[in-house]
Amino acid sequence: MQVRMPKILQTEREIRPFTRTTPLLHSPYLSQLTGADVWLKLENWQTTGSFKIRGALSKIGRLSAAQRARGIVAASAGNHALGVAYAASVLGGVTADIFVPGTAPQAKIAKLAAYPVALHQVGDTYEAAHQAAAAFAAETGALEISAYDDLDVIAGQASVGLEIFQQRPQVDLLLVPVGGGGLIAGIGSVTAVLSPTCRVVGVQPSASPAALLSLRDGVAYDPFDHEPTLADGLAGGFGAVPFAVAANLIHDVLLSDEKTMRRAMFTLLDRHQLVVEASGAIAIAPLLANQIDITGLTVVCVLSGGNVDTAVLRDILNEFS
Amino acid sequence: MQVRMPKILQTEREIRPFTRTTPLLHSPYLSQLTGADVWLKLENWQTTGSFKIRGALSKIGRLSAAQRARGIVAASAGNHALGVAYAASVLGGVTADIFVPGTAPQAKIAKLAAYPVALHQVGDTYEAAHQAAAAFAAETGALEISAYDDLDVIAGQASVGLEIFQQRPQVDLLLVPVGGGGLIAGIGSVTAVLSPTCRVVGVQPSASPAALLSLRDGVAYDPFDHEPTLADGLAGGFGAVPFAVAANLIHDVLLSDEKTMRRAMFTLLDRHQLVVEASGAIAIAPLLANQIDITGLTVVCVLSGGNVDTAVLRDILNEFS
Repeated sequence: MQVRMPKILQTEREIRPFTRTTPLLHSPYLSQLTGADVWLKLENWQTTGSFKIRGALSKIGRLSAAQRARGIVAASAGNHALGVAYAASVLGGVTADIFVPGTAPQAKIAKLAAYPVALHQVGDTYEAAHQAAAAFAAETGALEISAYDDLDVIAGQASVGLEIFQQRPQVDLLLVPVGGGGLIAGIGSVTAVLSPTCRVVGVQPSASPAALLSLRDGVAYDPFDHEPTLADGLAGGFGAVPFAVAANLIHDVLLSDEKTMRRAMFTLLDRHQLVVEASGAIAIAPLLANQIDITGLTVVCVLSGGNVDTAVLRDILNEFS
Repeated sequence: MQVRMPKILQTEREIRPFTRTTPLLHSPYLSQLTGADVWLKLENWQTTGSFKIRGALSKIGRLSAAQRARGIVAASAGNHALGVAYAASVLGGVTADIFVPGTAPQAKIAKLAAYPVALHQVGDTYEAAHQAAAAFAAETGALEISAYDDLDVIAGQASVGLEIFQQRPQVDLLLVPVGGGGLIAGIGSVTAVLSPTCRVVGVQPSASPAALLSLRDGVAYDPFDHEPTLADGLAGGFGAVPFAVAANLIHDVLLSDEKTMRRAMFTLLDRHQLVVEASGAIAIAPLLANQIDITGLTVVCVLSGGNVDTAVLRDILNEFS
């Protein structure tokens, strides 16, 4: 299964009016630390605070009038919910029911409240919210918009990769947070065509190594039983569609422990005044933990989102500063 | 004295390749709090972390070959230094000596170190750094680039105003941080032409009310003896040139106490995941302190910069969260 370049380019053109081209920021600190040339793709500055609007705009923009009339449903730890709410709001003509776990960060819930969506807080995990959303979809006939298990969503997330290569044509290594796999499948699809020698490496919390195990075993583990992690956006299974699209486009998956993720969040605040959630900051964790040798390489770390509660920021600043 | 629109438009065109068009972000929280429609101009997302590159690019871009050959000097609490260092670096062909007080935030010093400039840390206040810079300029023949007391610098800062009206043509009130006056003089010049009914109101720390007293007394107080303030970028005098340009374009100046400034920083972190320094967050302080009635108005608050040390962020998060 593939997401081909003409579809990705068309999607990028269609969603561009509603997205920000986020900066690719040079990091003198991480460059010096690693002996590489390190750049940060600031999707934490994307509208709603994460890249998820790209996939949601792509998917919802393609719905037929009949599908729109039946409404849409989404389950999410928060950022996909915001993406769907935003896309439904700017594209119009569709009602959205959003299911998030009761444990979702307040920063995400508060932003959701600003959109005209029906918000349901259900259970303590993404999986519980997802089950409730699926039941709601089955009952009402509304269409569930997956956060990752969908070719149209992946085509939208691919625009992050397009922007990176437009901003920096020569890249040796991309470090991409992995949860369900939508982002890395999109970026991997672009990279395979535009820069086939560039390595695409996923980073995920050791508390939830679904992508690593899926790629090792040759099967998509979804759902996936995980330990608690601050990287709420990356907890859970690796989707069958991203697996089919990207299994042979992902060169490696690295795991990060919770403390290194927190230190990554601190480093981005301290060195770049960037608020990045654990699921996004994890992209620089392998550099801080010296997990890979990148000497001499040009490396892009995708900071996928920035919706963090101040209580978490406070604890991290007290821990490291 | 005026900075006219053709010069502002030409400057904007010249500096645009080196600046970001920063977002104008809607604030549902501040809108609900005040009963107004409140927008935030994110100059904390500007390259180097503040609007100051605009004026520096405008000024340094206009230097003659002879002036470049003699070198440039700047004194700054940090952000103007970064602006000059960045502009000298991207425009090239000129050496820069930068004087900052030893008390400047580490976040600014660390960023400065990434540029090819000669950095001098002198004294404890902006005034001490400024005296050392002036002495250096007198000795060496280098040209001192003022942070605010210069028509070319003001023309550069004016581009913030241009962007605001391009992004939001109908604005009733602009809240602009005021220190030396370069930013408000530039924004005021644009507003008087593009939206003459829009009010331009400065906000400054009560610890350093130079602009307020200058406008009251009809004379520019510069230097100005001030109390200590977290808003290091706004401490000190109100320049004679901004005074001459903007005295009759500034409708009012509001003062903010230190605690409200800190609360403004917390609010921007908590509600928008934005790292904004005190000198920038002060623009929303009058809304939090209920100092003005803005019911029903469209209001833009200029968040002028984001270079804050994590120790300051930590203390603020511990104080309010």
